[in-house]
Parts: sequence; structure tokens; C-alpha cells
Amino acid sequence: MGLKLYGIPVSTNTTRALVCLHEKGVDFELVPVNLFGGENRQPSFLAKNPFGLIPVLEDGDFTIFESRAITSYVAEKFKETGPDLIRHQNPKEAALVKVWIEVESQNFQPAISPIVYQSLVAPLLGNTPDQAVIDTNLEKLGKVLDVYESKLSSTKYLAGDFFSLADLHNFPYIFYFMKTPWASLVNDRPHVKAWWEDISSRSAFKKVAEGMTFGEKK
Amino acid sequence: MGLKLYGIPVSTNTTRALVCLHEKGVDFELVPVNLFGGENRQPSFLAKNPFGLIPVLEDGDFTIFESRAITSYVAEKFKETGPDLIRHQNPKEAALVKVWIEVESQNFQPAISPIVYQSLVAPLLGNTPDQAVIDTNLEKLGKVLDVYESKLSSTKYLAGDFFSLADLHNFPYIFYFMKTPWASLVNDRPHVKAWWEDISSRSAFKKVAEGMTFGEKK
Ligand SMILES: N[C@@H](CCC(=O)N[C@@H](CS)C(=O)NCC(=O)O)C(=O)O
Ligand SMILES: N[C@@H](CCC(=O)N[C@@H](CS)C(=O)NCC(=O)O)C(=O)O
Repeated sequence: MGLKLYGIPVSTNTTRALVCLHEKGVDFELVPVNLFGGENRQPSFLAKNPFGLIPVLEDGDFTIFESRAITSYVAEKFKETGPDLIRHQNPKEAALVKVWIEVESQNFQPAISPIVYQSLVAPLLGNTPDQAVIDTNLEKLGKVLDVYESKLSSTKYLAGDFFSLADLHNFPYIFYFMKTPWASLVNDRPHVKAWWEDISSRSAFKKVAEGMTFGEKK
Repeated sequence: MGLKLYGIPVSTNTTRALVCLHEKGVDFELVPVNLFGGENRQPSFLAKNPFGLIPVLEDGDFTIFESRAITSYVAEKFKETGPDLIRHQNPKEAALVKVWIEVESQNFQPAISPIVYQSLVAPLLGNTPDQAVIDTNLEKLGKVLDVYESKLSSTKYLAGDFFSLADLHNFPYIFYFMKTPWASLVNDRPHVKAWWEDISSRSAFKKVAEGMTFGEKK
């Protein structure tokens, strides 16, 4: 039985898992979940993820959730296929991948996600973006990107001179962030900009980006 | 050369790493960092962790930061010593450990940490706890603990019938939370309560808890 990913192509957390599946070039089926109709709050979905959130991965009768646990499972299961996203043959490199995965999860995402939410989601819900929230988080994000800039001036990717999950996990939020009025935070930092241009031109990213139409006028 | 952990015994993130080192029974040195004197903002410390945060682990000339990356490194390096905290011989169990590590990091800690901060830290800084922040997060935490209760009614620990990093990572915040007026959120959920009594009576936890005097009257 093949892999099934439950989610939708515009969802940041779904795309984190999608990019990983495409990087590995493995066969999978994307099973849409109707969030607006509350399908994720139905017992059948809650049995897959008790938090009622996408994405969820099914591998035969084995089910997991949380986007970063999914990427890690896929990267481990298919470690011999495509790019090695976890550096499984080198314990120190593997540890550095985990450090920078945590940086994304603990420092980067908490700062960037409210900016994306206020700039792109709030207006769709008929709300005025809360500029105070945006400003506070732009300041936090700037500090994180200063660390990225400094790291990326000494290594090509975040965890070292190799592309890994630590880079991949940043993709969904930077992609949407570049559609906000604050894209200069990335563009004004030459190494962050070069890194972003590099990773966002990977074919797996380009494929997933096609579905990330959130915040676009139709 | 032995392991060095930079941090202080009252810090939640430091204790996450400390408990793991004690579980594994490995020799290490705890090197205090004078946060109040700003030692973590000095260039020598920023060279270890560019975010200027504790804990940091040094293993000879190899340096890593982020508490959950440290526990993962220690659990992997010493996988044959003491309890197997990452289920390294069983890919599915290992994946479930990662799922519940993410649940702690993404859902549990964001809800519990503001409650602990407002209840125990704000008063020390001469501030009145912000009850609105506490209330919002008690509601979020209650929902997370409902999921824990349900999971722990079918397996003994979060990721399955084995103690793992997924349980260990919860320790620092629950320990302090039990000193707040809201401990009933744990005590009123019988499986969560039994699980907490179980894990907090492990000798590694008891050793680390001795140093967790934050919020105590001297
Ligand atoms: N920490 C989770 C977050 C998942 C999440 O928040 N998913 C959103 C979509 S991007 C969702 O399912 N929202 C539905 C809802 O909140 O009802 C992960 O990384 O997978
Ligand atoms: N995500 C980091 C958080 C580390 C952190 O916030 N550490 C606090 C102590 S618990 C700190 O170093 N604070 C000093 C400061 O903010 O200046 C981890 O898990 O290690």
C-alpha cells in the first residue's frame, strides 16, 4: 500500500510534508480534507490526529501527524533515495540538522507565522491586519534572519554545506512571506536571499509552490 | 574530553537536557552561565549559540544548542546505555516518539509556558500576573491535556508502552506548573496524573528537581 497524505495544497504545514515527499520522489496520494466544512473535526479524522489538524500521513495501516515528524519519517524511510535530508551516515552532521530544525520550529516559525497570518489571512476573513502584531514579529524575525545571514555566510545551507530538512522546513512560511510587503527582510540580507533563491528553485519546491495560491487574487 | 552542559539548574530548557543526561547516567559537567550578568550576550557565549540562550552542549570540540536537539543527540550517542529514549531499533516506534515530541514542542509548551511565566516569573519581577493570558492558555492547555488523557488511557506513555523523550520533554514545565494554582488541570485527569506521578518519580527527574527552586520562597 502506498503513502497517503491528508491535507490541502495551500496549507503551510501540508506543504512542508509535500516538499519532502517530492524531494524523495516517492509515490503518494494527496487526500484533500475539507477544513471549511469541518471534516477535520469529525471522529474519522480525529482518529488519525486527535488534534484535528492537517497534515496526516498514512503508510499502510501506520498513521502519524505533525508535519516535522512526517518529514523526518519520510527522510528516514527513504534515506537511500534522492537527497539525504538527515545526514544519516554522519552523527555530527545529523545533530546539526536537528539543531537547525529546532531553530526553525522554536524561533523562526513563531515570528514569521503571525506576520503571514495578519498580512494574508486576516484580510481574507474581512479583518484589518493588526499592525502592532506585525511590528513586534518583524523585529523578532529580523533577529532570527540576522543569525541565518551570519550562518549562511559561512556554510551554504543552515546545517552545513548540504541541503537538509533544516532548510526544507523553512520553505512554506518564507514562500508566503515573500508575498507580503515585508519581503525586504529577506532580500536585504544577501546570503539569506541567495539561499532562498537556491532552495526555492529546487524542482520539488517549484512543484509544491504551484498549489500555494493563498492570498492570491483570482 | 567529557560533556559540558552550559546552563542553570532552574532553567526549564536546561533541565530538559539535564534529565536526559541523568537518565543515560553519563558523566558531564554543568557549567553555570550568569544570565543576570548578561554572560549569554557576550561574544564567547554567542560563538556557542548565536541566539544567546541556554542550554548549550559541548562534546569535545563539537557544540550544539536547542534543548530538544541536545536530548536527541545524547539519546542517540548513548543509545546502548540506560533506557532507550528514541526506540532506535523500531522505526515505527521511533516515528511515534517524534510525533509526540512535536506535540510537546508545538502544542503543549506554547500553552503551558505563558501560564508558568505569569504565575511564577512575573511576580518575581514585581509584575501582576496577566489573568487574561493565563485564562486563554489554561483553555488551550486543557485541550492538549484532554488528548494526553485519552492517549494515556490506551498506552502507558505518550508514544506507546515505553518511556521516551516524548515523555521526558514535558517534565520541566509540568514540574513548575504543579506549583501554580492550576495544578488541578493535571490532577483532575486520572491518566495524566498517574503518568506524571510515574515519570516524576524516576530518579533522574528527582535529581534534577532538587535544583528547580524557581518561584520558591527562600
Ligand atoms: N504543528 C502542526 C500544525 C498543523 C496545523 O496547524 N495545521 C493547520 C493547517 S496549516 C490546520 O489543520 N488547521 C485546521 C484547524 O485549525 O481547524 C504541524 O506542524 O503539522
Ligand atoms: N528553544 C530553546 C529555548 C532556550 C531558552 O529560551 N533558554 C532561556 C532559559 S530557560 C534563556 O537562555 N534565556 C536567556 C535570555 O533570554 O536572555 C531551547 O529549547 O533550548
